[in-house]
Parts: sequence; structure tokens; C-alpha cells
Amino acid sequence: MAGRESESAHAASGEALTYPFRGEHQAGIVTPAQDRLHFAAFDVTTRSRAQLIALLKAWTEAADRMTRGRPAGEIGPVEGAANLPPDDTGEAIGLSPSGLTITFGFGPTLFRDAGGKDRFGLADRQPAALEPLPHFPGDNLDEMRSHGDLCVQACANDPQVAVHAIRNLARIGFGTVAVRWSQLGFGRTSTTSTSQSTPRNLFGFKDGTANVKAEETDELAEHVWVASSDDARAGWMAGGSYLVARRVNMTIEVWDRQPLGDQESFVGRTKDTGAPLSGGGELSEPDFSMPGHDGPVIPKDSHVSVVHPDHNDGVRILRRGYNFVDGTDQLGGLNAGLFFLAYLRDPRTHFIPMQLRMAKMDALMEYLKFTGSALFAVPPGAGDGEYVGQALFA
Amino acid sequence: MAGRESESAHAASGEALTYPFRGEHQAGIVTPAQDRLHFAAFDVTTRSRAQLIALLKAWTEAADRMTRGRPAGEIGPVEGAANLPPDDTGEAIGLSPSGLTITFGFGPTLFRDAGGKDRFGLADRQPAALEPLPHFPGDNLDEMRSHGDLCVQACANDPQVAVHAIRNLARIGFGTVAVRWSQLGFGRTSTTSTSQSTPRNLFGFKDGTANVKAEETDELAEHVWVASSDDARAGWMAGGSYLVARRVNMTIEVWDRQPLGDQESFVGRTKDTGAPLSGGGELSEPDFSMPGHDGPVIPKDSHVSVVHPDHNDGVRILRRGYNFVDGTDQLGGLNAGLFFLAYLRDPRTHFIPMQLRMAKMDALMEYLKFTGSALFAVPPGAGDGEYVGQALFA
Repeated sequence: MAGRESESAHAASGEALTYPFRGEHQAGIVTPAQDRLHFAAFDVTTRSRAQLIALLKAWTEAADRMTRGRPAGEIGPVEGAANLPPDDTGEAIGLSPSGLTITFGFGPTLFRDAGGKDRFGLADRQPAALEPLPHFPGDNLDEMRSHGDLCVQACANDPQVAVHAIRNLARIGFGTVAVRWSQLGFGRTSTTSTSQSTPRNLFGFKDGTANVKAEETDELAEHVWVASSDDARAGWMAGGSYLVARRVNMTIEVWDRQPLGDQESFVGRTKDTGAPLSGGGELSEPDFSMPGHDGPVIPKDSHVSVVHPDHNDGVRILRRGYNFVDGTDQLGGLNAGLFFLAYLRDPRTHFIPMQLRMAKMDALMEYLKFTGSALFAVPPGAGDGEYVGQALFA
Repeated sequence: MAGRESESAHAASGEALTYPFRGEHQAGIVTPAQDRLHFAAFDVTTRSRAQLIALLKAWTEAADRMTRGRPAGEIGPVEGAANLPPDDTGEAIGLSPSGLTITFGFGPTLFRDAGGKDRFGLADRQPAALEPLPHFPGDNLDEMRSHGDLCVQACANDPQVAVHAIRNLARIGFGTVAVRWSQLGFGRTSTTSTSQSTPRNLFGFKDGTANVKAEETDELAEHVWVASSDDARAGWMAGGSYLVARRVNMTIEVWDRQPLGDQESFVGRTKDTGAPLSGGGELSEPDFSMPGHDGPVIPKDSHVSVVHPDHNDGVRILRRGYNFVDGTDQLGGLNAGLFFLAYLRDPRTHFIPMQLRMAKMDALMEYLKFTGSALFAVPPGAGDGEYVGQALFA
């Protein structure tokens, strides 16, 4: 792809960034969250284990290439024979790598189908943590925005680079997988490194202040990365993580008519600086015992209180969500909200209890509608010469 | 909005750009095309002419503020009383103006309803050019992605800035208008200034090479801006333009399986440099008479031939389209394509004949599905103290 670096139409700081695809962990988890997302879930349409493995090998090679700013295939979008389809679709010609990361995951249905049947000889290696999430109060899920055998998260600072990655992986998978659903996110809502400032979600509040960050090595080991001792039958997940993906519509038109003070009470932080209502700055620890006019100054049903580690057995998660707007709903409102992505060591301890607590008592729930949901096991990174998830098939 | 400039989470070259909202023409037409789009069409829900005028005044003031990087309202997202809803939604706090432009238009249905009834006393000023577009062969329109009484095009180099603009205008219009449809675009597909490089559409080809550009003053006067003599009953449109908005789905999975040579024949240009198949560079004029193996080297049904001014009575248009991906269609393909936006002096001479010609003979039509369509009259720019479209109501 000659000239990919030289003639960028989207020159901007950070676009020449590259992150290595291979390593101990997959990139795109603790990598400083890029600005844009294209996420896709796939159904596997073949019954052949060999074809599935061949796909993972091909995806690994293509991802390794694309994250370096190279074409998806060896030949490239315009260098091949005129009588053959190009092995890259070409819309990223002239764009720089833009910090692209590509992260792969395996859904519960890759291991067993709805009837419990072992699809690819993997059932005895299915992690105990990888069971479909339960129905939560407030869930109003669209099945065609939920679940999936495989997932691919593509993050980049240029959306066209992220879209190009997903599209080419789908192209490579033609005949083996079909896109089940996909989601674009235009604005990151989390901070995965202390080097980043905290962005705002579509409620207008800073989001992700208390996130686990790349620099917190001990916390990552405790809350994000799977250890080899976690699950005897799923040793292949050591160094991996579990990914919860939830499409959360916000009723933003209703939200926008709430008084500022009420919005701040629902969140438990000020809208301006993001400081907890108990005072200090954005990074100050909330004081849940400080009295207010009527109960604690940070209400018990505020979001910050409901999800705080102190009220959730000390668990923390690594959020990596994005704002989305997908046109308009049937009531003349924007179909908009948060595409919640979180990496965590075990959904049974680190997500399900917190989500149940939120559904039961979080004041924000009145302004949220959960329209998509999925859980994936994200294997560790591929080393040199390996394909992603190789240990699962070994 | 203290600190809006200082703490940008999306620092990138070009984000500090501002374009004046007021002027002879509306901004967002010949303005160098920004990278991101949020476009919305609205239905007017009031019957009151006074309320419609009040809305246009409020929108003008809010647009003037937001394009300067200020909040939508005078008070701002966090400075107001705790017992009142903020007059700005806050998600753009900390973001720079990002070259935001906001462009307003009026649909045919603002003048007359489906039964021909004059809605706001404007019927006798409806331009003759502003009639609903005819049905074109290949149209498979979703009514809820088509038409609209009003439109707002928000373009910016940060998508969150564009989304913030549309969302706040919708908020301001609550009770007077409802969003009918909206569309995000992530990658510009056109070049409206000679200072810009040519981007690529989702076919992987450079798009917009032969666009009318800001520097071509005479061509703009001939092909884009409405002259005061164009329509005696619509003198208020002088200095304005007509906007055609068409949502064009591409069957990209099918496209990606076409040989490179076929793709180039369909487009009439090389995929690499964008040069016409008759030779030269991207900006070389195509030679439609140059012979090839089997007919002219640029096929008669190639896109570049079908839409070229030489074959369309010399007309040119100013395209300002964007790539979009809206999740997945029901067949496991990406719901993706081009959101075509074009500004032109008169749709009867500058669009309808060309679209009919395309529908009839363009080789690309096999890979296109038109899923949305709308036409708007875009009035001239508002001067100091004026509101947008004021001359229509004078």
C-alpha cells in the first residue's frame, strides 16, 4: 500500500501511532483508548473445526498486517492482477495506522449450540465463567444486537481505519462466518491510561474516572487478567480476559429536561469537574458517609455509589466504552447512548452482581435501556508464529 | 463553558478551527469538507407560524454560539441554577470548535402538506424547484429515512461536536419540531477546496475528484448558488442553494468479490491514483473517445462517463457526501455506503436528469441501493441581527 503514510487525508496527531498486535496480552485492552470504534460479532457458519482454525490463522495474519498500517492481504488493494478481486478493499489507502488495535473474543455459543451440542470439539474447554449472561431487570434486548460466536473489536483514531479492519476481516471470513451485528462508536468514554484526560458520555458527564488503568499492574492482575489457576479446564485463557459488551440506549431527550441538581444527584458527581458530591476534585475518593440535607450528600442510589468497589466486594473493572448515535428512534428521539465494553477477570464476580445491583437501585436506570448484550472470552495475545486463541485448539 | 479550549480530550490539528456562521452564504457548503457529519431532518409539529419563526431565531442564535465553540445556550451546561435544566447538554465541554458548521434547509412539506394545504402562509413563496424528487429506478426508499420539513447539516472534525450540535438544536426545538431521521457520517468523501486531498469511498476509490470547489467562483455562481433572477416568487433564495440528500447503500460484500479490472471499468478510473482509464493523473480530463479492446477504454456505462458534465448538458454539482456504516443488515452484511449530499442551483437541471441517466445506465447501479432521499431549499446566510431564512418570512 504505497504511500499510505505519505498522503494522509486525515493528518492529525496520534495517527502515525502503531501498537504491536502480538504480545502477552491482546492489544486493545490496556492500550490507551483510541477515539473511534467498530465492533462486530460474527456467527460461525461452517461446521468444520479445520476451517475455523484456518480462519483464526488468516485473521491473525491480517490483523498483524493492518495494525502496522499495511493492507489486509499480501498483495494489496491495487497491486494485484486485474482478473482477481483485490485482497484489500482499498478505503484505507493513504490513511496512517491511526493506533489501530484489533482484539478477538470467543462467545459461549462457539463451544456449545443452543441445544448444548459440542460444535467444534471445544466443549470440555469452555470456561465456567463463559456462560450467557442472565437476564437483568431493565434488559430489553434485541437478539440481533446480542450474542455471537466470535467478536472483533477494532479501535483507531480514524474511524475509516477501524471500519476498514472489520470489513476486511469479514471479507476474509466469507463462507466461514457472517456478521451477526456490528456497532460503531464515535467517542471514547473511558480512560485506560493515566496519560489520558477523562472524556464525557452523552449524559454530559465525565465517564471512566475510576477506571482500572494500564499503569496499575497489580490491579490489572487482580481484576482484569485471567490467571492460570482460575479455571482448570480453561488454562488456555491465562493472560486473557472476559469482555462484556452491552448496548445501553439513553433517553437523552428526557435526561436533557432534568434539572442540573437532579442530574448530579443521579450520577453522584458534579457535571463540571466530575468531583464527587462530597467534594474535592475529579480524582478525590467519594465520602459516602458525609451527611447532606436529606441523607448522605452522595445519595445511596447515585451511580457512583451503586457501582463503587466499596459496595461491590472491592471489584474493579476496565471499561472501554464508546458513545454512539444510530439515527433516530420511532418516537422522534435520537437512538443514542453508550456502547459499554468492559474487560474483567470473571463476570460471575466482577460484573453480574454489579449489574444486578444497578438494575435494582441505580437512579440512572430510569434513563437507560439495555438493547444489546454479549459476553466473550478474550484469549491472551498471540506470540510470534502463533494464531490468536491457538492454545484453545492445541 | 470554561476550559473548553484548554482540556481537549481529542487534541488534533484542525480542531481549533472556527468558521463564521453568518455571511452571504451559509457555512458548510463551500467550507473545506470536515471529516465528520451528523445530519438530521425534522418534522414541524406546531401549526403556529410565530412558533416556527421563534424556532428559527433560537436555532440561529444557538448555531452562532456553537460554531464559535460556545455552549448552545447563554448560561451553559454547568453554570446555571441547580433547579433548572441546563441550556447546554455538556458533552462538548472540553472539546474545541473542531471547524463546526451548521447549515439549515427547508423541505417542500414546510410549504404545503401532502394534501396541498398551505401550512404556514408560505405556499406562494415555494420555489418551483422545490418539489419532491420523482421516484427513480433503483429507489427502495425508507420513508423514515426520507423527506422532512427542515434539515440541519452539522459538520465538524470531531464527531462529538457535530452530535452535540444536532442534539442541542433538537432540544431547543422540543415541542415545535421532532427529529424525523438522522444520519452520522464518519468519513468525508469529497473535496470542496483545492487545499484538500481526495478521500476514498467504501468502494475503495477516490471520490469527488471533479467536484466544484470553493476556489471556482464562476462555477459556483453558475452551478451552485441560486441567483435572484432564478425564480420570481422565491427571491428569498438568492445566494442559497438546493441540497439533495440521498442515502445510498453499497452491497460492499458483493463488490469486494469483483476483480480489480472490473471494479475499475465500473468506475472508469484506476483504483490506485484515481486517474481516468484513458491515462494521466487523478486530475487529468477523461478522454471518452480513446479506443480500448472492446469499445472506448472508458466504458460508456462507467460512472465517470455517465455523470460527466460532457454527457449532462455541462452541469456540475458540489458534492459533500460521507461514508456511513449503520450496523448490519439482515443478511449478515454491513449496512454501509455513501450518504450523498450535493448542493446545486436547481435540481430540475442539475440533479434529476443525471440521476435518471445513472439509474438507466450506470454500471455501479448493480452495487447501489437508494434507501433514503430528500430535497431541501437552503437559504442564503444570515447577516448580523438576522435569523436564517428571514427573507422567506419577511
